Amino acid sequence: MKFEVTILGSGSATPTLERNPTSQYIYLNERHFLIDCGEGTQMQLRRNKIKFQKISHIFISHLHGDHYLGLVGLISSFHLLGRKNELHVFGPAPLKDLIFSHLKASKTYLKYPLFVKEVDTNASSILFEDKVVKVSSFPLKHRIPCVGFRVDEKERELNVKKEAIEKYNLGVEQIKLAKEGKDILLNNGQIVSNKLVTSEPPKPRSYSFCSDTMFAPEIVSFIENSTALYHEATFLDGMKQRAKQTFHSTAKQAAEIAKMANVNQLYLGHFSARYKETDLFLEEAKQVFSDTHVVFDNMCFQIV
Amino acid sequence: MKFEVTILGSGSATPTLERNPTSQYIYLNERHFLIDCGEGTQMQLRRNKIKFQKISHIFISHLHGDHYLGLVGLISSFHLLGRKNELHVFGPAPLKDLIFSHLKASKTYLKYPLFVKEVDTNASSILFEDKVVKVSSFPLKHRIPCVGFRVDEKERELNVKKEAIEKYNLGVEQIKLAKEGKDILLNNGQIVSNKLVTSEPPKPRSYSFCSDTMFAPEIVSFIENSTALYHEATFLDGMKQRAKQTFHSTAKQAAEIAKMANVNQLYLGHFSARYKETDLFLEEAKQVFSDTHVVFDNMCFQIV
Repeated sequence: MKFEVTILGSGSATPTLERNPTSQYIYLNERHFLIDCGEGTQMQLRRNKIKFQKISHIFISHLHGDHYLGLVGLISSFHLLGRKNELHVFGPAPLKDLIFSHLKASKTYLKYPLFVKEVDTNASSILFEDKVVKVSSFPLKHRIPCVGFRVDEKERELNVKKEAIEKYNLGVEQIKLAKEGKDILLNNGQIVSNKLVTSEPPKPRSYSFCSDTMFAPEIVSFIENSTALYHEATFLDGMKQRAKQTFHSTAKQAAEIAKMANVNQLYLGHFSARYKETDLFLEEAKQVFSDTHVVFDNMCFQIV
Repeated sequence: MKFEVTILGSGSATPTLERNPTSQYIYLNERHFLIDCGEGTQMQLRRNKIKFQKISHIFISHLHGDHYLGLVGLISSFHLLGRKNELHVFGPAPLKDLIFSHLKASKTYLKYPLFVKEVDTNASSILFEDKVVKVSSFPLKHRIPCVGFRVDEKERELNVKKEAIEKYNLGVEQIKLAKEGKDILLNNGQIVSNKLVTSEPPKPRSYSFCSDTMFAPEIVSFIENSTALYHEATFLDGMKQRAKQTFHSTAKQAAEIAKMANVNQLYLGHFSARYKETDLFLEEAKQVFSDTHVVFDNMCFQIV
């Protein structure tokens, strides 16, 4: 099952021609999510040929413009392009007021159901859950209320081996019971141990996203053991004072968080526009956490 | 003196990869204006290498998202990039509330003076005037309150001929009087008629902008004799019923307005995303008004 992240925007507060403001599209087994929605996100969705009407949930980390100013345009375009399916938007207050003030000013009466739910920015909470995935939020430490998100794949059912199905001539009902971990009563009265017909499913994967935050070891408990972690790295460590003042992180600090949280891979983004190259970010972070990558616009990576 | 329009966005409600939502940058003799500011305008300003901190006045025609959703991002970027000079923004209510709600939510305390003035959408009014230029607004006929803008170059002073300056050995004070149309008293007591030393300045130029409007002959008095007119043409005439229902115009209707208003050139834009080509817009409009052009993103044209 594909679990994929597409980087729509990887820049910071002042977008450049190379880096749009923050937005990421998450695909996991027919679930379509957007995390953050900076100005230009709808154009970036088009550029990446993403069928954007399929996006059902949008998660906004905080109300700095570079993380949500593309939201009203996207909501309007959904409407103009004939959307009928529900859209669920999550983000800190007063996101709901901001969205509906725009819609009121433009006299836009949406043809689809829009639900905007304001997120608790002081505690972790589950925002969405179904049989495949769970999305939760947790507090980050930024200049204004801000949350990170964690997308967890659920434990999958046991895998029933093909050769066992053939050998024991298993029917639909027997396969269902096997997936649930039960031993199987065959048609001839024999009982076959579950272990003989099933194998363990792949380990559930997870992706954590920390949009804007200063170095904050208190977030580690929320993101620990993630398969992949996206963590902002606005500055290099030479500017760690500036990072602290502006409630941002350096590449080194992001790597320290990744190490403490015992994640598999670290992805860095949200680079200040003052840096033209990202080589030094990679170099700095890799000294602390080797499996580090830097993101760029229109890049796509698998969570494996 | 250069009088130039740069098309930053030429599309309509749902932007495409080829056409950003509406925005135009107007340059006239060291005056820098922006008309409308759809999502992505700040990126388009960068793409066109426009020194955007020089923009002093932004005029917003109405509060449909495709005409103003790039404004808060631009205001924030001005701030983040260290702007000190005043910015004046004009547009229909509740533009001021919308802007300040965003700034409040992001706790952005601007380092430069921002003045937002709400425009009367029922009558014409002068929004800005100095010795070079006058910008006025006038009501359009759209689904929500909407205004057009007219940028008028002021009458220039008389041109004092170089050869006359040399022949009569004119000093600074005498040149100043000549520019004002006065006859000149020479140092030898002789009086020289103004007509002998001056020539007429070029005729003042003007640019009118009609963002979103249905066919509305009542706007003609506001735009008449403009050097150039930009008029929306969302549809071709085969869809004139749809145009009427949605308070938009067809290419033919735009051309009829241009003809009635006795303008020199007509520029068409705001094409519905359903049309992939604009040849038919040009063909249709030219049957009524020959000096018609279609605009596209990153195009620039002179008002002459």
